[in-house]
This record gives sequence, structure tokens and C-alpha cells, in this order.
Amino acid sequence: MDRLLLASDYQEGAHPAVLRRLAETNMEKTSGYGTDEFCAAAGDKIRAACGCPDAAVHFLVGGTQTNATVIDALLGPCQGVIAPESGHISTHEAGAIEFGGHKVLALPQSLGKLDAETIRDFCSAFFGDQNREHMVEPGMVYVSQPTEFGTLYSLSELTAISEVCREYSLRLYLDGARLAYALACEKNDVSLSDIARLCDAFYIGGTKCGALFGEAVVIPDPKLLPRFFTITKQHGALLAKGRLLGVQFDALFTDGLYMEIGRSAILAADRMREAVKGANFCLALDSPTNQVFLLLENSEAELLSESVDFSFWERRDASHIVVRLAASWATTPDEADRLGAVLRRIKASAGA
Amino acid sequence: MDRLLLASDYQEGAHPAVLRRLAETNMEKTSGYGTDEFCAAAGDKIRAACGCPDAAVHFLVGGTQTNATVIDALLGPCQGVIAPESGHISTHEAGAIEFGGHKVLALPQSLGKLDAETIRDFCSAFFGDQNREHMVEPGMVYVSQPTEFGTLYSLSELTAISEVCREYSLRLYLDGARLAYALACEKNDVSLSDIARLCDAFYIGGTKCGALFGEAVVIPDPKLLPRFFTITKQHGALLAKGRLLGVQFDALFTDGLYMEIGRSAILAADRMREAVKGANFCLALDSPTNQVFLLLENSEAELLSESVDFSFWERRDASHIVVRLAASWATTPDEADRLGAVLRRIKASAGA
Amino acid sequence: MDRLLLASDYQEGAHPAVLRRLAETNMEKTSGYGTDEFCAAAGDKIRAACGCPDAAVHFLVGGTQTNATVIDALLGPCQGVIAPESGHISTHEAGAIEFGGHKVLALPQSLGKLDAETIRDFCSAFFGDQNREHMVEPGMVYVSQPTEFGTLYSLSELTAISEVCREYSLRLYLDGARLAYALACEKNDVSLSDIARLCDAFYIGGTKCGALFGEAVVIPDPKLLPRFFTITKQHGALLAKGRLLGVQFDALFTDGLYMEIGRSAILAADRMREAVKGANFCLALDSPTNQVFLLLENSEAELLSESVDFSFWERRDASHIVVRLAASWATTPDEADRLGAVLRRIKASAGA
Amino acid sequence: MDRLLLASDYQEGAHPAVLRRLAETNMEKTSGYGTDEFCAAAGDKIRAACGCPDAAVHFLVGGTQTNATVIDALLGPCQGVIAPESGHISTHEAGAIEFGGHKVLALPQSLGKLDAETIRDFCSAFFGDQNREHMVEPGMVYVSQPTEFGTLYSLSELTAISEVCREYSLRLYLDGARLAYALACEKNDVSLSDIARLCDAFYIGGTKCGALFGEAVVIPDPKLLPRFFTITKQHGALLAKGRLLGVQFDALFTDGLYMEIGRSAILAADRMREAVKGANFCLALDSPTNQVFLLLENSEAELLSESVDFSFWERRDASHIVVRLAASWATTPDEADRLGAVLRRIKASAGA
Repeated sequence: MDRLLLASDYQEGAHPAVLRRLAETNMEKTSGYGTDEFCAAAGDKIRAACGCPDAAVHFLVGGTQTNATVIDALLGPCQGVIAPESGHISTHEAGAIEFGGHKVLALPQSLGKLDAETIRDFCSAFFGDQNREHMVEPGMVYVSQPTEFGTLYSLSELTAISEVCREYSLRLYLDGARLAYALACEKNDVSLSDIARLCDAFYIGGTKCGALFGEAVVIPDPKLLPRFFTITKQHGALLAKGRLLGVQFDALFTDGLYMEIGRSAILAADRMREAVKGANFCLALDSPTNQVFLLLENSEAELLSESVDFSFWERRDASHIVVRLAASWATTPDEADRLGAVLRRIKASAGA
Repeated sequence: MDRLLLASDYQEGAHPAVLRRLAETNMEKTSGYGTDEFCAAAGDKIRAACGCPDAAVHFLVGGTQTNATVIDALLGPCQGVIAPESGHISTHEAGAIEFGGHKVLALPQSLGKLDAETIRDFCSAFFGDQNREHMVEPGMVYVSQPTEFGTLYSLSELTAISEVCREYSLRLYLDGARLAYALACEKNDVSLSDIARLCDAFYIGGTKCGALFGEAVVIPDPKLLPRFFTITKQHGALLAKGRLLGVQFDALFTDGLYMEIGRSAILAADRMREAVKGANFCLALDSPTNQVFLLLENSEAELLSESVDFSFWERRDASHIVVRLAASWATTPDEADRLGAVLRRIKASAGA
Repeated sequence: MDRLLLASDYQEGAHPAVLRRLAETNMEKTSGYGTDEFCAAAGDKIRAACGCPDAAVHFLVGGTQTNATVIDALLGPCQGVIAPESGHISTHEAGAIEFGGHKVLALPQSLGKLDAETIRDFCSAFFGDQNREHMVEPGMVYVSQPTEFGTLYSLSELTAISEVCREYSLRLYLDGARLAYALACEKNDVSLSDIARLCDAFYIGGTKCGALFGEAVVIPDPKLLPRFFTITKQHGALLAKGRLLGVQFDALFTDGLYMEIGRSAILAADRMREAVKGANFCLALDSPTNQVFLLLENSEAELLSESVDFSFWERRDASHIVVRLAASWATTPDEADRLGAVLRRIKASAGA
Repeated sequence: MDRLLLASDYQEGAHPAVLRRLAETNMEKTSGYGTDEFCAAAGDKIRAACGCPDAAVHFLVGGTQTNATVIDALLGPCQGVIAPESGHISTHEAGAIEFGGHKVLALPQSLGKLDAETIRDFCSAFFGDQNREHMVEPGMVYVSQPTEFGTLYSLSELTAISEVCREYSLRLYLDGARLAYALACEKNDVSLSDIARLCDAFYIGGTKCGALFGEAVVIPDPKLLPRFFTITKQHGALLAKGRLLGVQFDALFTDGLYMEIGRSAILAADRMREAVKGANFCLALDSPTNQVFLLLENSEAELLSESVDFSFWERRDASHIVVRLAASWATTPDEADRLGAVLRRIKASAGA
């Protein structure tokens, strides 16, 4: 039987509806660099979805690129970005923020989330410090929704963070690489409009949510980033055939496809979580979106690796590790059931 | 009648054969970041085409990104890159090289080309200067083939440049954004193997040559860039679904498609050049590849703009400008003929 | 009575013997940029003091500048520098390391010191991480001697750190901004020769140890940094009249002046510590060098500020703060005694 | 007889009056980082000399450092600095501007000077270019007074440049490394007040004009650079014992010393120019300030090098070079006379 490939949510190409639009429009001729009508149409749909008619919408290619470009564009000289210690920019972007000359001010997190009070304490200490002119000034806050742990900020949590940011004149930036999986989650109470209201910039992830690639940066108040086009070019982040991004996001924001993609993945992930529990395994953390974190004994992980591709997440102790499984729009109920079967077999063989 | 859209060579999506491969492979699951089998296969085909079995092949998304990443990776501290004043990195990359901390050492060019003697004189002066330790050291040379003017380095010219580079321990890097249109040109005598033999790094352009996007970086001696993967990540240039690049370049290097794309565009450009001359207009420069440079009186340019999209290239004098028309794999003989008809009409109305 | 000025160890100009040499040599003409005979002589004396006849010695102006220049010069692309969370580069250099494109990998510290095991655990985790190619690679370790807390690495501690560094191919760099106060401390067992043997680069501080300004960078194996002169220039760290640095360090390393300066400050600091204890105040931490950390109630701190300039160090709790007093070569026994008198008066008034 | 050392204007220490003030104030205790009363007093005197009571005055250590820090502080993202091809930042700062991420937009010069029309043409072309959003935007203009060739901008020339800058919203920055030698030159008609009125930022050079080291940055409208202190720290350009700079500039701006230093050097240079002409040698260019450019046959240069230290300036043709001699405040009439004697001897031996 084929291996189960559940290591990440970007293992396939694009959702068939997205690919179809690329094929249908392939021979049309447009101007480059996102100045075409597909980008205009996609921007309109995103503005409407965000309840934010004046927002600037820019399309970039990938997540690290988007984070590095937006953060560099928003920070002033000698400013840094507050982020959770587990944030993607703190850990897995090979120093892309520092390459742009800015420090990541990593603060303690809980299940991938920053707490408004943690930010307030840090800012209060910073702005009260007599030596602050010798220090990197916090200029913005980075959060991700869902987080790298698949967890969600509630509306009240995000509101509290937004309030701290406004109190201390920090920009609030939200990394929505997997935003579809937040928006479609039953437990989520933060809408696109809420994000647009509470944040100074954010991106709606395409790469992990049904597109071949692409992230849509939304800047509710476009006066904030007047030179963003050129900054994007300077970062090597301006796609020549920009319309490819417009076409894809136009498809994603037509007939509710983006939400449908999110829901489909969550359903698959829920079924995977049930399978885990049904096989008497433990979830390593309470993560309601498309990622499933599974606590395994070392020997169980070895057995699992014989038939399932997963991501190593972390070592919990000498005899246990946490592995991550990810569902996407392409994950089928059958795959979840096959995971369950594998897990039950492992448990049975251990008991034998 | 529809406008003729000839402003650039990246107005369409992908060559149909490329798009077809993306569609056929869309639902296959692979690992990310270019570690998949499509990238491996495409790399093998490119190594074979370059006669360079040991080369490292990396796939990036766009041209400015590729230039910025490769040049930053190849230069040491306090080193700069020699480039023609008209080179893409000197003019149209919004300072991407300087963003990485390196100076572009712009030297005079002729029709977009650097001359080996110009480089030698510069290096001889630099390395003989008593103050050279206060100056930016030339660490590499950047050329493009074809150049931004559509012209070609001959094998003897490129060999001479390569010899200067080796004499002064400079890396030689070739920007092949439109390489298909060089390789397929009758007047060209520089093969992929020659490039691989003479250069330390180069890229084979996909974006302007039939792909949706993508550039294949070839490093004949892979020991030269041991940490290129992470550098790519740091530059925001690592595509999550890297296999999209592999699939496209695999298609481009199957059954001679890359050459076919080049030939088709050159044929269309030749037909456009004939149309220009047939209508008694002048070519502004002798450019044998897919770009056509047309000298126009101001009033003629205005008339042309009523039915043709073109690029403004430069003002020649108060009453004349040069415009650029570009052919791609998608340009048809009929489009060239329609251009001729428009030009003849303009000439006729001027004579009336 | 005059205020007691004990806020820092750089409140005066230079030690009189240093200033005298500057005056004596003022009208001599030399070449610039450190190519003069004073720099040569000072370099020889430093090489001798370090037992390191082949070392390269470079003279820079200030501490942050030296850290930023040396660290940038030693790190490769995508590499970061491990430092204690309390290290000067982590906190009080306004992001100078990040400005050069490198991440500070801040690890937990104890009284300003990193522990070899902490570094080993971090490196072991990093080099064992499957995602390490997406992460900033640790390329060097930064320590300071004495630390920002005035504490000292023992020879066995520094040896252990050096061993971890060599195990994982990290460079070890020691910031000796206050090195005189380590070398002259009775409790110190780490000599200049030990530092030169265990570290890949370090600097001997002048600014805080008797010079007007200046730091002497020592690179035991000069092949490590072949282009350091130009890198220094690029960082704006090359002094035109470089001989000023040579003259000062020549004076500091003649007739044991550097050690004498250290001893004198330690004696003054010891007398201050006795005064603190004699007045029934508590030292906030056990710091044997030229800095004295004093635990005060808020009201006591307010009283102290009426007659003494000190540095705020940190808030311990709602009602207590820690203040720092610093002794330098210029601090007199009388000043320590006057501090004692002030403290006793505060205690007495509190008891009244 | 001793060699004549005329290679540069920073071969000695400080003017005796400056050194005396450093000695007199050496044991006073002050706060660090330029927050002391000497810096305050020097700032007041400079503001008065510039007729600019609201200006911010910051003291940095050296010229390259000052250029890199001020230019980085004044430019926005994706902006570059226009400079003459021969400007110090274009040639002899080892890429310090590019290290900060900004491009030097080098324009043709004449005897070291930019022309207002050259700048206007460049800006007009840039702001009229349809591709300007892909290009580095000119954000400021760099000039030096006197220039690297010792020449001077007239008031009308500098006014014209200032007008172009305001027309295109460029900042105008003047590098005054040798400003004393401009201000004291008979042919000069540009006062400090003129500079303060016409420029957005400039610096008054100390290193080459009588100080041990130090440059005074003047920002007529301090709102322009609100975070300059921290930017200075980040660039490693903040001197711990900042008062050393205040003491020196206080001395330089007391009793007309700065002008006296300038006049004395110009007198010596004039006498050197007379000596050159008196010995039937040619001045290579008309330079009225403290630098003397001498055209020599190769064999004459070799003979001269036997008894005089000079700077190689440039090769004029196969048989001629230009050498530079520099006078400073410390150059005596006797040295000029001895130069004359040497030159006459060379001429005589050539005629023999």
C-alpha cells in the first residue's frame, strides 16, 4: 500500500479550481508586475472580504519573502520586531529579518501565542529604560494566525494585543500563511474584517491554502507604505508575470473557495485527531486547525515512519517525541482512516 | 481590431506544454523546497545539456531575485560586482544588490556588452592602486546573454572576458534571463557547454522563455557555493512548492522545447524586423534576438501607440525616440504582419 | 561638598601617562591608518604580553564598533553569534550586529556568564535539527571578560567553552572592554596568554581602562581575517590618525601600566564594597572587579542620588532597585570613604 | 637632511591649542556619549558660527563614519545618493554606503564638482522614466567643500545645486572634511551660514583641520533626524567619552582658531605652489586650497620621492603622473622653501 504523505500542507500543486483558472487565462496577454486586471479583480474581492474598501493589496510569492519585505518596509531605522520565540521569523527564516538589518525581539510564548501583557511589560520596561537610546526600539509586533502550533488567537486576545500596539505606537502585523485554516475553524471568532480592523498589515496565505504559490498582503491604510512596490522589487519579491497571483487569488476569493478549502482541511484534521484518540494515542497539544500534533514513544515513531511521512516537531523527553501531521484541502477522509488503521496496528503490536 | 501587444516577452502565461505538465502532476505529493524528484530530473537534464555532470542546479523564482541571491552568495565582504552601465543589476533592480551590501561597479558598455579590455584596464588600475585597501574590490563580473539590448557576446568575446576574470580571480556570472533567444539565434556561437566552461555561475531563464516563472541557476563547480540553500532561504527566494520549478524546467528541457521556444520567437522577431524595414522605418540598433528596437519620430510613436503596445526605450534626440518591441514563443507570424501593416499606414499618412 | 561621580568607568579623559605620551609625540609626522611605528611598537608589546608572536593586532576606536566589525568579519553568510542574553551585543548596541545582517542568538546566562553546557545543548539541538538549513547557523560565541555584571570566567570555564567551540567549529570571541579589571583581579586565573590560546579573536579594552579611547583587537591566527583592514574601513571604524591608538596602547603596555590601572580600580572598588558592607547595605551580586552593585530600597536610592551619581541597574522588586557604581583608575580611596560616609548617613536617617 | 613629509593633512596629532584643552580638562568627570557640558558649549559655538540657533550638532569620530551614518539616516528605503564620480563616498570608503544598503548614484564631475544642470538632467530623466519604480530613487545629493581636488563650489554654484535639490525633494549634504581650508581661502565666497542655509546636513571637519579626530555634524532643521543618536550608536559611531569631541571643537571654535588653522595651511600651500612654478614645474590643476597637485615626468617623480613623501594622485599618460602634496596647520614656510629647493635641483639635474 502507498505511504501516507502527511508531512506538510504544501505537498500538492494547486486546488483544481485554481489550476483551471490559470489554464483558462494562460494565453491572454497582460501587462506585468501586478498591474493587470486579474490582480485588480482579486484585490477588489479581497478588499470586499475584509470590509476594507481602501486597503492596498499586494501579491507576493512566498511567506518568508512576504515577512521579510513587509517587516523591512514597516520598521524604521534601529527598530526591531517583537515576535514569539516560536514565531516563523524567529526560527525558520534563516535570518531573513536580520539580513534586512532588523532585530527580532523574541518574547516568551504559550502554544505559539504572544500575550498582550507580555508585550506591555516589555514595552513598559523599554520605554522606561534610561538606556533605551542605546537599544533596539520595538517598532512592531508579529503574530501568526493560526500559529505555528496550529492554535488560534481569540478576538479578545487579538484585540488586547492591538490595544497595546496602539498604546505604544507599534505596528501590528499578522502572518496568515495558513489563514484559511483559521477562518474555517469552528472555534475561531476572528474574521477577516476583525484582522483588517486590528492590524496594520497582514497577509492571506495562498501557498499553504490551495494556490500553487502566492500571498496577498493587505494594508488597510495604504498611506502606511507608499513605496511598497519598489521595496518589493528591491527584495527580489516582485513577480514579472504578476497576473499569476491575481488569477489565483481571484479564484480563491470566488464562490467561497478559500473558506471551502479551509473547511475541507479542518474536517480531515478533525478526523485524524479522532483517529489518534481512537487508537489510544495522545495529542501533544490542543490544536484545532489543520495541524495534528501527536505524542509518540520513540519506538512508535519508528514504526509510524514505515508507512507515514510526518514532520519531526520536538523531542519531549528521552523516550518521547512529538510529530506533526498536516492536512490540506487535498487530504481525503480515506487518508485519515488509513492513519487510524496504522496507529491501531502500532498500538496492537506494542500490546502484543 | 485588437491592439497588438508587443511590449514585453512575459505577457502570457506558460508555453502550453509546460502548463500541461503542471496540470498532469498537480495532485502528486512531493516534499518541499526543491528536494523532490521533478527537480532532480530537471537538474539532470540541465547538467546533460550543459555538458557538466557535476554542476549544482538550483531553481529560483525570478530574475532580480536570482541576481541578488547569487551575487550576494559569491561575493566576499567589501567586494563589488563589475557590470555594464546598462546591465539589469545596474539599472532596473531597485538597488537589490546594494540592499545586500555590495556595490555595482558599473563600466562603460557598447550595445549592452562589456569588453574584456575594459575589465582588464579597470582591474589593472584597481590592483595597482596604492589606496585599493580603501576601495571596493572587484570580486566578480556580471554579463547578460543576450544583453538588455538583445545583442550577443560571441564565443571569442566571452572567452576573453573569462580569461580576464581568471587572471584577476574574479567570478564570472552570466544572466540568462532570455537565454533561449540567444541559444536559438543563428548568429550565436556560444553553447550552453561553453557558458558552463567559461562561467562560475549562470542562470537559464524560464520566466521570459516559456515558463510561468522560474530561473535555473547552474554552478559548474558546486564547491563554490556550499551554503546556497540557506542563502536562498534568507533572501526569501526559496519556493515552498519547489517542485513547480522542477516540473517546468523538466518540460522545457524535454524534446528540445527550450530551443524550439527560442527559435519560434526569433522567427517572429525576424519577421517584425522585415516588416519594419519593409515599411521604410529604421531599426535603432542591430539586435539579432527576440527584441526589436525601432527608431521613430515623436509623431510616429504617437500614431503607433494607438494600435500597438510597446516599451519606451530611450529618447534619441528632441524629435526621435527608440521603442522596443518584444517577441516571445507566443508571438505569431500574423502579429508581425499586422505590425507591418500598421507601420506602412503610418508612413503613408506621413507622406500624405 | 562636591557630588561623588561614580556612574561609570569612562568619566575622565586618559590616564596621565597616556596623555603625556600623546603630548610628547604630537608634532611627529607619521603615515595614517595605523601604518605607523607607534602602532607597530604597540602591536609588538601586545603580542609579547599575549605570548602570541604571530598574532595580528588591529586598533579600533570603541567597543560597539569593535564588536560589530569583528563579528561581521568572522561570520559567514546566514551565520549568527551566540551570546548571553545580558551580553552587550544582545542589549546595548542598538542592533549594530543585526545592521550587519547577522542574528544574535541569545542564550540564558548566569551573572552575565554563558555556560559551556548551554552552548553545547544549543549546538547539539541545532546540528541535529532536520530543519537546520532553514535556520541561522551558530558561527561564533561571544563572551565578555569581565562580564557586564563584573563577574569573571574561570580558566576552566573558558576552557570548556573553547572546547565546545572547537567541537562545533564555532569561533570564540572575547569582549575585553574592561579587561584590565579582570587581569588585575586577585580572583582571576585567566591570563592574556590563556585568552590568546583559547579564543579566535578578542579585544583589549582601552576606553574604559585608561585610554582616551581605543580597543586593541588581537587575532592569534592572522590568516583568519585576511581582509580586516578594508572591512574596518567599510564599517567606518578606521581612524585616519591611527597612530593615536598606537601611542596610547604603547603607553598602556609599557612598564605594566595596564595592570597598574586595573589594580588601582580594583582596590578602589574593594574599598567601596567594604564601605557598603560597613554601612550595613547589601551587595546585589558577588562581583569582584571594578563594578559595585548595591541593593537599595527606593527611598534609599533617592537619598543616595542627592550626593552620588550612579547608574540604575535594574528593578529588583516594587520596593528595591539595584544600582551600579564603577571605579576606574582615577577613583581615589577618599572617594570610597566618602561613599561610605554617605551610606552610613542614609542608614542612620532611616533608623531615626 | 630630513625627508619632507607632505603626503597628507593628517600626519600630526592636534593643533597645540586643542591638545592643551584636552590636557587641562583631562581629570574632570563628565557623563558620556556627548551629553556633557563641553559638547553643549561646542554646539553653541558652532550654532552661532553657522547663524543657525536651532540646529542640532552631533559629534562623530571620522569622515567615512560620518558620511555612512548621516547618509543612511537621511535616505529612505530604495533611495540612493547622487555624488560626483570622484566623491569620497564613490571611491575611497570601501563601500560603506552600500554596506548600509544604499546605492551611490555617481554622476560625471569636473575637477571634483557636480554641476546643478547635471543633477537636474538626471532627476528629470529619472522622474520622467516609466520604469522609475524599478529603479533606485535619488534621495539626496553629496558634495564636498573643498572637493577631493581641493577646488571650491562658488556661492552661486552651491545655490543652484540647492535649488535643484529642493525642486526634486532631494536632501543636500555637504562633506566638510577639509572645510577650514575652504572657509579660509581667499577665493571662497561660501560662508558657514550659507552652507547652513543651503544644505540639509553637513559636517565641519576636525580630523584634517587641527583636531586629533572628530567631525561636527550640523543639521539645521533638527526635526529632520529625530533618531540620530541611536542611529549613531548602531553604526558604531558613538564615542563613549564624547566630551573629547566637545573639548576639541570648543577649542577650534574659540578665538577664531578654526579659521586661523585654515589660513595657515593655505599660506603654506600657496608658498608651495609658488615654489612649484618657480622651479618651472606645472601645477596639474587649479586648486586654491591646502592641496597642491603637481605634474611630473616619471623620472622626476622618482627623484622627488628620494627626499619628499607625497601621494600618488593619478597617471596622466605613459610618461607623466600627477602627485599630491598637502599642507596642514603644521606645515611651515621653511618646508615650502625646502620643497622649492628640491624641485629646482631636480630640474637642474634633468637639464644637465
